Amino acid sequence: MATVVTRFERAEARVVDGLAAAGVATVHEAQGRRGLMHHRLRPIYAGARIAGSAVTVSLPPGDNWMMHVAIEQLRPGDLLVVAPTSECTDGYFGDLLATSAQARGCAGLVIDAGVRDVRELTAMGFPAWSRAIHAQGTVKETLGSVNVPLVCAGALVNPGDVVVADDDGVCVVARAEAERVLSEAQAREAREADKRERLARGELGLDIYKMRERLAEKGLKYV
Amino acid sequence: MATVVTRFERAEARVVDGLAAAGVATVHEAQGRRGLMHHRLRPIYAGARIAGSAVTVSLPPGDNWMMHVAIEQLRPGDLLVVAPTSECTDGYFGDLLATSAQARGCAGLVIDAGVRDVRELTAMGFPAWSRAIHAQGTVKETLGSVNVPLVCAGALVNPGDVVVADDDGVCVVARAEAERVLSEAQAREAREADKRERLARGELGLDIYKMRERLAEKGLKYV
Amino acid sequence: MATVVTRFERAEARVVDGLAAAGVATVHEAQGRRGLMHHRLRPIYAGARIAGSAVTVSLPPGDNWMMHVAIEQLRPGDLLVVAPTSECTDGYFGDLLATSAQARGCAGLVIDAGVRDVRELTAMGFPAWSRAIHAQGTVKETLGSVNVPLVCAGALVNPGDVVVADDDGVCVVARAEAERVLSEAQAREAREADKRERLARGELGLDIYKMRERLAEKGLKYV
Amino acid sequence: MATVVTRFERAEARVVDGLAAAGVATVHEAQGRRGLMHHRLRPIYAGARIAGSAVTVSLPPGDNWMMHVAIEQLRPGDLLVVAPTSECTDGYFGDLLATSAQARGCAGLVIDAGVRDVRELTAMGFPAWSRAIHAQGTVKETLGSVNVPLVCAGALVNPGDVVVADDDGVCVVARAEAERVLSEAQAREAREADKRERLARGELGLDIYKMRERLAEKGLKYV
Amino acid sequence: MATVVTRFERAEARVVDGLAAAGVATVHEAQGRRGLMHHRLRPIYAGARIAGSAVTVSLPPGDNWMMHVAIEQLRPGDLLVVAPTSECTDGYFGDLLATSAQARGCAGLVIDAGVRDVRELTAMGFPAWSRAIHAQGTVKETLGSVNVPLVCAGALVNPGDVVVADDDGVCVVARAEAERVLSEAQAREAREADKRERLARGELGLDIYKMRERLAEKGLKYV
Amino acid sequence: MATVVTRFERAEARVVDGLAAAGVATVHEAQGRRGLMHHRLRPIYAGARIAGSAVTVSLPPGDNWMMHVAIEQLRPGDLLVVAPTSECTDGYFGDLLATSAQARGCAGLVIDAGVRDVRELTAMGFPAWSRAIHAQGTVKETLGSVNVPLVCAGALVNPGDVVVADDDGVCVVARAEAERVLSEAQAREAREADKRERLARGELGLDIYKMRERLAEKGLKYV
Repeated sequence: MATVVTRFERAEARVVDGLAAAGVATVHEAQGRRGLMHHRLRPIYAGARIAGSAVTVSLPPGDNWMMHVAIEQLRPGDLLVVAPTSECTDGYFGDLLATSAQARGCAGLVIDAGVRDVRELTAMGFPAWSRAIHAQGTVKETLGSVNVPLVCAGALVNPGDVVVADDDGVCVVARAEAERVLSEAQAREAREADKRERLARGELGLDIYKMRERLAEKGLKYV
Repeated sequence: MATVVTRFERAEARVVDGLAAAGVATVHEAQGRRGLMHHRLRPIYAGARIAGSAVTVSLPPGDNWMMHVAIEQLRPGDLLVVAPTSECTDGYFGDLLATSAQARGCAGLVIDAGVRDVRELTAMGFPAWSRAIHAQGTVKETLGSVNVPLVCAGALVNPGDVVVADDDGVCVVARAEAERVLSEAQAREAREADKRERLARGELGLDIYKMRERLAEKGLKYV
Repeated sequence: MATVVTRFERAEARVVDGLAAAGVATVHEAQGRRGLMHHRLRPIYAGARIAGSAVTVSLPPGDNWMMHVAIEQLRPGDLLVVAPTSECTDGYFGDLLATSAQARGCAGLVIDAGVRDVRELTAMGFPAWSRAIHAQGTVKETLGSVNVPLVCAGALVNPGDVVVADDDGVCVVARAEAERVLSEAQAREAREADKRERLARGELGLDIYKMRERLAEKGLKYV
Repeated sequence: MATVVTRFERAEARVVDGLAAAGVATVHEAQGRRGLMHHRLRPIYAGARIAGSAVTVSLPPGDNWMMHVAIEQLRPGDLLVVAPTSECTDGYFGDLLATSAQARGCAGLVIDAGVRDVRELTAMGFPAWSRAIHAQGTVKETLGSVNVPLVCAGALVNPGDVVVADDDGVCVVARAEAERVLSEAQAREAREADKRERLARGELGLDIYKMRERLAEKGLKYV
Repeated sequence: MATVVTRFERAEARVVDGLAAAGVATVHEAQGRRGLMHHRLRPIYAGARIAGSAVTVSLPPGDNWMMHVAIEQLRPGDLLVVAPTSECTDGYFGDLLATSAQARGCAGLVIDAGVRDVRELTAMGFPAWSRAIHAQGTVKETLGSVNVPLVCAGALVNPGDVVVADDDGVCVVARAEAERVLSEAQAREAREADKRERLARGELGLDIYKMRERLAEKGLKYV
Repeated sequence: MATVVTRFERAEARVVDGLAAAGVATVHEAQGRRGLMHHRLRPIYAGARIAGSAVTVSLPPGDNWMMHVAIEQLRPGDLLVVAPTSECTDGYFGDLLATSAQARGCAGLVIDAGVRDVRELTAMGFPAWSRAIHAQGTVKETLGSVNVPLVCAGALVNPGDVVVADDDGVCVVARAEAERVLSEAQAREAREADKRERLARGELGLDIYKMRERLAEKGLKYV
């Protein structure tokens, strides 16, 4: 059952880049509040905002052998999405793997486990989202699979899906929906720009969104 | 039972500012180690040290409708204190609400739930303390209450109480006690300045605080 | 049973400094993946990488009296390693204790509990690794012990052991093994420098580590 | 600040017993979904359903001295409500304290910390709700307070409030509201009895509560 | 996007019952260690071992409206699988819903949130697996979906999948694989029966599984 | 470094049995509140109270190969103490291993990870204390060590130490101290029997332990 899928479709770079620019919160709203990974995944340093095509890695607890297999499958603009088959916080990924991934144009790492060498990763500008920072090493004894569908931090990811990550967390967009979600995200941003300006001038959301009547109907009392 | 209390007393700005300057750890000690919120509340960026008069918001899990209602109640120097009625980490608050709150002079946000758009909040200089950073959106369907007494992260807060927040966490001071706590905090700081100098020169706490005798009495052995 | 051991052996400064330079992940690997503390211990600010000889402190929950006793035992280059006898997140350590410890040449603090005054500690450049940041104060009523063997965040520590800490966490090296572990760490770093260069040029770990044959033997399929 | 309040009002036994019979879920609903303690409090054995007048105990982490003080304040039908001033899971309460409390007619214990001797407590039929079962002992060095208002597991409790506890958790009813909440709880039970019968016969909630129209209005689609 | 899918295929009762008899640990092994939900789901009482066809319910945090919609879709032998769209521990399900579900032949409940009335559910013999026992009530304001694919406690579930639950947890078997997994589970049980007998007589796994040589090869030393 | 130590000393059966009879809370007190494992270890069923000589097993996350090696080292009255080298909740132990261990006279299992087949273990009367119940299976690829000193759930355990376990948790007694701790435990029980009787008759701990004067000295006020 240990397999490596070597071919899958990716979204266009223009779409991936557009989703990165929109950021996680906007993309998540734009696709109907679906696809968000659990907020236990946190960036190892603040300020990165990226997107990439998912190369997925399913591997055993405490064993990072398949990371080496996965790196060969990376193309520029890809992003590694890694989930152990059972809950684990070991440091699966450090500066040597990051050097190798970066050499192949990898945009970053999303892992529902631990990373290490975070000082070095930060210096390299290699962004990573993880559930732990953990120096604990791993072994290389047991196979897993690359580019199979998997559940990572509660979200379903297929290879080639667009994964967006920033300080707010990580969100997955199905490849087939990426173009549509981008349009919706951009429309949403346009709408929000106007709202932001009005709010900054002191207008109230109660008035902009016309909430007063519905609040009264539901029975809100001012005392 | 959904109500908005529109009037309550606030502490004087001088007192609020004095408490901000003292910081959480000193204020907490100065009022007898009471009023501290649970340490699960963490700042979204390091270095902010603020205080404000509490505008309290009690709202349902996954529903941020009352945030809009609360913003209308803000006066310059107020601070939003938000607690869901049941444990929730959703992202109740983002850059649009922050823009609106900031336009009304709001000092910051304390929420026993999640926030999002943290990159934007950081850029705006809008400080927030939360239990999670989470892009997960909320709905606007169910009422809550504004400016009622509530328990936030384990601490009782009444509207108008002074809430102090910095990198050490969040502490609540009852409005009626604020002046007295400020005096005690300032006295404490004065006493500590002298201690700090002596300790920096190499004197030992064992001697400054005259602990040696009591330690011996209790039975401490050096071997 | 409350005792203070006043004499114990320390590793040479050269060895301690060498281990600091190698960092936690490398040291942990170099000694066979042993000695790592639980990853719940996190630095209060990013970027510090230190090592020191352990002065151990075992104390009760919510009571930091023994910290004052421990500070007298510090020599330049020592590092405080503190574990409560029962799980606790209180803020045992703040800027006054840090001032005193720093005056005695203490390298930093590792504590399986809370610290406070983190803004001040950061400004002072006093590094600390803790399981919590918590303003909650402690009392001074109950004795503990200094320089006894203890379990801190899951790792056994003897006084005089070398403790290495950086952004990846905290690792303990037994004093008697420190010299040998340093040699192994340095050898490891030399080996890794070459690998890093080859990986940066685009060579694959699969080839460098000759993994392809063994993967095939275990049954990995490419599809 | 360490005080023992020796007098406070209690609700009538009839009211307390009525609330016990209604159980936590019903009482919680009957008072508008307020007053529930955090669900981390769990019973040490299944099947108990009690209520009592709160004797509150605020005490330091790892120190159970005030339990002995509190027991003297117990009257038949009272229930101990205990919260440490800082998070703690130590075993504050065991079979000797339970023997003493039971001798004074105490109905049970609610504690946001640990208990021990649970086999003995179970054999004695002394019910307890706690956040942990933990053999860890405590010291007797530092004072606390008895019968002051406190926050226990997130809920505000005043001495004399009625505390209801069963397998679903723990709920607090303010003494002044207890009679009214009991009436509402009993009315609620009467209404539910009819619903339960209809549901058991196969009628659907969709029809009993007439939800179909509102669901359609909100846009629910059947496919 | 709120939809109710009213038709989907179910596995044969014979297959469902066979998987129930095999139990979670065996089924999980038999399908290659896939499909297990997170172990935070625990049974409300010990001893139940069931399986059923999944009727899936995706709903908002703190809102159980869709439970009523889902119950209408139940057929005898079905099992409710419920996941909130954002982490929540509220008590979505109690004795009235259980009465209704039981009247329609529902086998039990699996929910990545809270349940209440557990004393009543236990008395009714209605088994439930949940992440919390929590009296906290919910509202009925926001739609969700029934019989859509969802991720529950980390596992992907499609309507009609067979869900097996017992004291060891909860495991999902894709409907299309159920027959095959049952065969493998039964074959596995047959093999284990023989092993169990030999082990009970004192034979060692080291010998039965012929492990000694491979252990020596890997370098295990006896001292 | 993977080794199996085949010889070590055990405490006398009389001492082991005496400690079992005393139970965890008493033994923990009798040895000065040391040796308690973290309270995350819970029994899989209520009511067992055992003690045994530790056969220790250190093994990798997600890999239970060494359990088979350890079982060969068991003698009647031994107890398996198992700790993964990195945090893991997988189900390392099920009914086949229990059958084998029981056949060799093993008293039970203490594991800082998961177990499975708990229904079967309960039926067999094989007691186990674990941090999780988890059906997740493990592999057999990587070596560990048997009968080496290890830290299990925060407590240091040497092979041959006496491990006591009951509903209150798990406590370790160093073999060399076991006789002395037993004497102290029995003395303690004798003293408590008298106290229990007096407390049951209604005497107060305040009087029995003569606490009133010291409480007044410390400043306790009755109001």
